Amino acid sequence: MILEGIVTTTDPDGQAHVAPMGATIDDPRDRPIRHAILRPYRTSRTYANLVRTGEAVFHVSDDVGLFARAAVGRLDRLPKLRPAAAVKGWILADACRWYALRVRRISGPEERAQVEADVVEAGSIRDFLGFNRAMYAVVEGAILASRIGFVPGEQIRAELTRLAVIVEKTGGTRQREAWDFLQRYVREKIGEGK
Amino acid sequence: MILEGIVTTTDPDGQAHVAPMGATIDDPRDRPIRHAILRPYRTSRTYANLVRTGEAVFHVSDDVGLFARAAVGRLDRLPKLRPAAAVKGWILADACRWYALRVRRISGPEERAQVEADVVEAGSIRDFLGFNRAMYAVVEGAILASRIGFVPGEQIRAELTRLAVIVEKTGGTRQREAWDFLQRYVREKIGEGK
Repeated sequence: MILEGIVTTTDPDGQAHVAPMGATIDDPRDRPIRHAILRPYRTSRTYANLVRTGEAVFHVSDDVGLFARAAVGRLDRLPKLRPAAAVKGWILADACRWYALRVRRISGPEERAQVEADVVEAGSIRDFLGFNRAMYAVVEGAILASRIGFVPGEQIRAELTRLAVIVEKTGGTRQREAWDFLQRYVREKIGEGK
Repeated sequence: MILEGIVTTTDPDGQAHVAPMGATIDDPRDRPIRHAILRPYRTSRTYANLVRTGEAVFHVSDDVGLFARAAVGRLDRLPKLRPAAAVKGWILADACRWYALRVRRISGPEERAQVEADVVEAGSIRDFLGFNRAMYAVVEGAILASRIGFVPGEQIRAELTRLAVIVEKTGGTRQREAWDFLQRYVREKIGEGK
């Protein structure tokens, strides 16, 4: 199964790079998460950092504002971080859970790498909220917004209109703020349509 | 915000009644959950039990198979339960977190009651997985399936087709099983369409 989360890697200058990413894992209800497969684009900073350092930290988070901003490269400032112990990497202080990863093998096609990694340390910080339909709508919206240029504008606008109903009906302040950010971003990039 | 979860109430014979339900809560990142508002239909067993006993247990769970089956009234057998302490109610042994509720006030329109309740006890059992898009798709699918008869069949089939792509792409065994169950249920109720 694919768990959507936030990956931190370390830039050449030692700074953290924060990116949303899906990790393929075994169902953690059968056993603890010991391995993960990441699939970064080979052109991404996350990929360059993974190749250079061989390390990363994968986070489970319900902070959809962070997902939304990181998905479209609009993280104005880094969230609060603390250094990991088992790897030379960065842990998001406000995540729910984190998994320090060491790369075992990189393969996969030209465009998108397949990065197999072992979990070398893990921690819990706070509870993941649970099923809030608005949070999921924001994550779906963030994925759509990150695909502008690949997916037709009309389709993006139509799906956002559908998701907006869910955010309106079930969201709290944080989810609405994240949604408003995405709406502004999409309007700026592809306009209102006809 | 609305948190989707599973509510247990107690039937007149002392047995547990299990139903999926949204609870309106304050964002728990600002403060712990102390109050919840449930909105059961006045014709539902959950409503009758709430009125009679004044108590319930609300659960945060990532078990989408349970959501799917309970949403359409096809829980063939009750999940594993243990008795609560602060209320005469039932806790789902495999939930992520639970909140024992005592009803403070029932109001609201004729069709759907507004049940305000206080959290009188709470507990954590295991981590909620996190953002898995397939889990979300199953919850959306379960909501759709529970609306057969109110929402046009064509619309239900169209939305399920869209959600199926997400389940296929990001789901694990449990999510696929829950999805297959929903697909079979919907086919049985409204057929394949034209």
